Amino acid sequence: MSDFSTELKPADPQGPNVLSQERARSDIDINQLAQHLLHRGDFLQRQKKILSVIEKRPYFCKKNQLNLARPDRYHLGLARAKELRRLSLEHGWDIDDYKMADYLTDEMAPYALQTVMFATSIREQCNEEQMKYWLPKVESWEIIGCYGQTELGHGSNVRGIECTAKWNQGTKDFTIHSPTLTASKWWNGSLGRTANHAIVVAQLMLPDEKTGKLKSHGPHQFIVQIRDMKTHKPLEGIVIGDIGPKYGYTAMDNGYMLFKNFKVSHSALLSRYSGVDSESGMYIKPKNQALVYGSLTYVRAQIIMHARLVLARACTIAVRYLSIRRQFADRDAKDDAAEVAVLNYPTVQIRILPLLATTYALHYTGEAMFNLYWNTREEIEKGGDTSRLAEMHAASSGLKSCCTMLAADGIEVCRRAMGGHGFGGGSGIIPLNNDYLSKPTVEGDNWMITQQTASYLIKRMTESVKDPYPTAKAGEPIDGQFRLYLQNQQASKRFDIYSTEKDIVRAFEHRVSFLSHQAYQARVEKKQPWTSLMISLHRLARAFSESLLVANFHKAIFESAPNPPLAEPTQNVMKDLFRLFALFTIDAQSSEFILSGALQPEQLHELTPTIQKLMEAIRPHAVRLVDAWSIPDYLLESALGRYDGDVYNALWQKAHLENPLNLQTFNPDWNTEEIVMGEGADNARGRIEKLALGVYGHEQRADAKAKL
Amino acid sequence: MSDFSTELKPADPQGPNVLSQERARSDIDINQLAQHLLHRGDFLQRQKKILSVIEKRPYFCKKNQLNLARPDRYHLGLARAKELRRLSLEHGWDIDDYKMADYLTDEMAPYALQTVMFATSIREQCNEEQMKYWLPKVESWEIIGCYGQTELGHGSNVRGIECTAKWNQGTKDFTIHSPTLTASKWWNGSLGRTANHAIVVAQLMLPDEKTGKLKSHGPHQFIVQIRDMKTHKPLEGIVIGDIGPKYGYTAMDNGYMLFKNFKVSHSALLSRYSGVDSESGMYIKPKNQALVYGSLTYVRAQIIMHARLVLARACTIAVRYLSIRRQFADRDAKDDAAEVAVLNYPTVQIRILPLLATTYALHYTGEAMFNLYWNTREEIEKGGDTSRLAEMHAASSGLKSCCTMLAADGIEVCRRAMGGHGFGGGSGIIPLNNDYLSKPTVEGDNWMITQQTASYLIKRMTESVKDPYPTAKAGEPIDGQFRLYLQNQQASKRFDIYSTEKDIVRAFEHRVSFLSHQAYQARVEKKQPWTSLMISLHRLARAFSESLLVANFHKAIFESAPNPPLAEPTQNVMKDLFRLFALFTIDAQSSEFILSGALQPEQLHELTPTIQKLMEAIRPHAVRLVDAWSIPDYLLESALGRYDGDVYNALWQKAHLENPLNLQTFNPDWNTEEIVMGEGADNARGRIEKLALGVYGHEQRADAKAKL
Repeated sequence: MSDFSTELKPADPQGPNVLSQERARSDIDINQLAQHLLHRGDFLQRQKKILSVIEKRPYFCKKNQLNLARPDRYHLGLARAKELRRLSLEHGWDIDDYKMADYLTDEMAPYALQTVMFATSIREQCNEEQMKYWLPKVESWEIIGCYGQTELGHGSNVRGIECTAKWNQGTKDFTIHSPTLTASKWWNGSLGRTANHAIVVAQLMLPDEKTGKLKSHGPHQFIVQIRDMKTHKPLEGIVIGDIGPKYGYTAMDNGYMLFKNFKVSHSALLSRYSGVDSESGMYIKPKNQALVYGSLTYVRAQIIMHARLVLARACTIAVRYLSIRRQFADRDAKDDAAEVAVLNYPTVQIRILPLLATTYALHYTGEAMFNLYWNTREEIEKGGDTSRLAEMHAASSGLKSCCTMLAADGIEVCRRAMGGHGFGGGSGIIPLNNDYLSKPTVEGDNWMITQQTASYLIKRMTESVKDPYPTAKAGEPIDGQFRLYLQNQQASKRFDIYSTEKDIVRAFEHRVSFLSHQAYQARVEKKQPWTSLMISLHRLARAFSESLLVANFHKAIFESAPNPPLAEPTQNVMKDLFRLFALFTIDAQSSEFILSGALQPEQLHELTPTIQKLMEAIRPHAVRLVDAWSIPDYLLESALGRYDGDVYNALWQKAHLENPLNLQTFNPDWNTEEIVMGEGADNARGRIEKLALGVYGHEQRADAKAKL
Repeated sequence: MSDFSTELKPADPQGPNVLSQERARSDIDINQLAQHLLHRGDFLQRQKKILSVIEKRPYFCKKNQLNLARPDRYHLGLARAKELRRLSLEHGWDIDDYKMADYLTDEMAPYALQTVMFATSIREQCNEEQMKYWLPKVESWEIIGCYGQTELGHGSNVRGIECTAKWNQGTKDFTIHSPTLTASKWWNGSLGRTANHAIVVAQLMLPDEKTGKLKSHGPHQFIVQIRDMKTHKPLEGIVIGDIGPKYGYTAMDNGYMLFKNFKVSHSALLSRYSGVDSESGMYIKPKNQALVYGSLTYVRAQIIMHARLVLARACTIAVRYLSIRRQFADRDAKDDAAEVAVLNYPTVQIRILPLLATTYALHYTGEAMFNLYWNTREEIEKGGDTSRLAEMHAASSGLKSCCTMLAADGIEVCRRAMGGHGFGGGSGIIPLNNDYLSKPTVEGDNWMITQQTASYLIKRMTESVKDPYPTAKAGEPIDGQFRLYLQNQQASKRFDIYSTEKDIVRAFEHRVSFLSHQAYQARVEKKQPWTSLMISLHRLARAFSESLLVANFHKAIFESAPNPPLAEPTQNVMKDLFRLFALFTIDAQSSEFILSGALQPEQLHELTPTIQKLMEAIRPHAVRLVDAWSIPDYLLESALGRYDGDVYNALWQKAHLENPLNLQTFNPDWNTEEIVMGEGADNARGRIEKLALGVYGHEQRADAKAKL
């Protein structure tokens, strides 16, 4: 059969020409903007360096990933993880290089917990002796570790975990035990098939000083060898396995683990802050745990910075493809008018351009969080001042919730805006979406952790109400805003959001103050049950997070010269992006702005027209604005989003030359069970039944169980 | 190693006990409500009948699906499709039985296009002679067909497709040709590997009567044999293949197809309505195409009915699991208080219960659409009256957009509300979500087709403005509402949405009238460009669709006795569901209600508290309300959502006994390339490279190309 497809090219305009023209009509200095966004930790140079090492290596080819069975994805993931470790040594990579490789590989890999949660626990929770013993083993990767906290029955509520570690005063050791099925560890990354050691979080059970009855001192961390170092089989008294396929994280062996009266030594309890006195069997209470809060803020700043890059990836794909894609002529145009670039439709712009603005909004708040973290850390190390921790923690909880939601929802908005091709494997959106959709529920469920933010704001409002006119500057930063609100509460507000940017910030702050005051009245004055207020509290936290996003964006662009610097044309676009992000957010939450009195209803009439004008102004810069995020084609793995814009040839290549299904010829006749031509009906039946039933079959399950 | 997991059970309360108690505290008559919802086409009896045939057959076991490679999913899908066809004959299934089997199998299968688009085209577009020839072949499945309309470069804009069919007056035949790569057919289901025939949509090219130059008469349908009936290889002049993995539809071979000067006979052009006179080579213009509109409405009513079942499935899983799942004690409770069922948190209720109400809202509008379709069809067949077609079409476009969005978004809301386990394979949400997310963009993109709705509303408003006080009843149904609005425009509105249900309906209608009038002013009076109005037009269509959902729900529950009947306790819950759906929708769009004057800002204060009270009232009925949708466990394929509530044992079973990855032991040592224990490093390297690079490898692509 002759393949004449090589003779053909896509209809005009050609994608590469379109993107060249798009890039030519903007005066944004991409290199400068990229440096502005990605200066932290030499991101750009590092990306280039690591990319050059991994991009061409066969193991790191991503082209076949969507075709693979889940077990094979784990096999490949483990092979890649090993190779990354070896490359790391070969090239003398530091931890940031290693993380960059992880980012570019774009896969939650079987070793992922080793460098993050496992090593962190060792570093943060070991006493000196433990550290001396364990840290070299971890850093040399002599042992492979994971972190076992979450259980089948408990995730968010860590205090509710059921796994126990009972102190045996006679033998001076602990017994780790899972009293129920729901006590099984569950979800723990790298546990299922890979790790030979685990940090196990268990209720520390000691006899009560007075009654002598066993009592829990809450969840504590233990380091436990879980598999034989030679055979890699689970040790006697432990049942382990992989929990099976998930929405994403295909290459990761999230695991389960049960203990049956499993003994570990006294030294297994990580004892930097607390412990058990082996002589008396008494509990040693924890000292200051402030640093834990601090590092949580750091982790959450990273989450925001990650969210911006994830959303930037989705926007890069959408902006480039939608600039190239044409569909329908303008309805008011003459008969033979050319089709319009899809990104020129306001109904497409309203979905994509505010998200593009959001990538920038997330950036400046991520930056602000990092700076806050480093400054606070410095203060703590200098004099032990921990006064800003509560604020940091409150902000970080709300922002984790808000920012991961914006990114997760944003990916899907981009996908849908790309129509049919967004649903195809050539979009590059599938793995991005499947993996990122874990974020709204992990590391603090997005609807749960906002309570911490609201709780903090109610506390501060309570203080402000007690003393609305303080003689000296007092309290925490937010108090000033609250007092201003309390002092002016009766005055009619009118923020001029269309001509004064600072008024936009004030309107967001006013809304936060109003909602905080409402929450304060309900909870503190009227003593309403906490649970009954949870919806309002979640909304309050969201309002606060949006207020921070707007304020940090404003500060970075309007209140001082951007740092690193930006040329004026770029600055002007950034100003429009700020306006677009803020007004779009107001539009989405407009009734709260009206109810709080931050806006008058008639002000809303101008909202959509103003947003539409801003989008028109930003539109010519869209391609350069995504280019600046510097997402390499290797990471995008997207026919639609590739830098050169050769969309249709790339889609064709992917389908026609990289699809294993096209190498087989099938028998479509329903009258035979034969599937592949020449296979025969009987062969097919046996093979297909195995596919359907899995290795365990219907009957074999009992046998399989014995084998485990 | 001993497996002691069999000795353990989940911590109390046990799931089955919880669900029993949940079911005991509601007085809804489940059987009656199920009959009320699912009477159409004997749905319940049919479901039972078909389920008993397929549930236990090995091919239809779904347990291993998430572990399979994509090519294997197609193999399995084809095997299932064949078996369904055989079962169909064996058991004497009618088309509705067959569709039920398809619904329960829950897979877009390789034969899917045969019974739907292919057969429909034959039945609707063939002239008598063609029908006589083709229909028996289709109905006996002697040929397997697909429908080739969408192309690589064109989807929504059907008129823009590039594939041409040129009439050759000399040889009295057509030449089908793809002039560019973007002219390739693309996305067409069953084409990639399965079908041997296709309906090909191509621009019909005939010489212009005057100039003699070739001119397109627009897209027309041709029936074309595309593969050899014996070898199943593509015919010479055709390149075909499967487009590769997608977000969902894993078992379906969505295909691509290029033609190079491929000849088909005169009779290939389906000629019921239009055609080419073979003597003169002249175009025969289409007669009345009204029926096409009609069947579109029918298809869209089906989409809504499908959307309600899809959303009901997600709600079933979420409501059952979240009733069982406990996490955290009440913050105001004493120290040793038990943990709270997650569904008792208002922050969870506000996500799930309005969606549960939405399943019912979708139902009554689906019912109304079906009734409208059948009534209109009857009228057309009686006297040719097509006056209601425009309204039906306008409503159906907006509703397709609105309802598929509600269902698609709702699935993800349910998934996130289930926290970590929602991300796991045991949720049963993964295939549901992956497949359903195609709906917002296929069969009319959700942001594109709303223009048809808006266009209709502007037309009606224009008529109403011309004649606001007609002497006789005139025009279309919506005109009455528009005239009422125009007559009362200056009067201050206050709809009492909290105590008068009819006022809720009026508030929704008022908003539609206001937005229609605004659109009319912008487009008709101020002559603004259509494109510049697209955002407002989309919002108008959404407002209209929501208004229909609310009005149809109100009509079914408040305006007459429910039919089939419902006992009073059930009716009362339905009334609360109506209120919840309507008020929740108002809350989400509140600024439009305020701007339109349908609501006063101060009315918003009561919105959240009222919604919260309604949710409290509905909460005890939640489990029975999902039970009524009668989704069998086989379809749910969900550990979290199973009818008996034995959630944790089911999750454990799935992970521990049905996961092929747990049968292998791995080598975690980074120092060796060995992956599976005993495999050796060299074997691993070769195998893993193949996984990464795919069958084509890096170098082999050129070879592979030759093979195609």
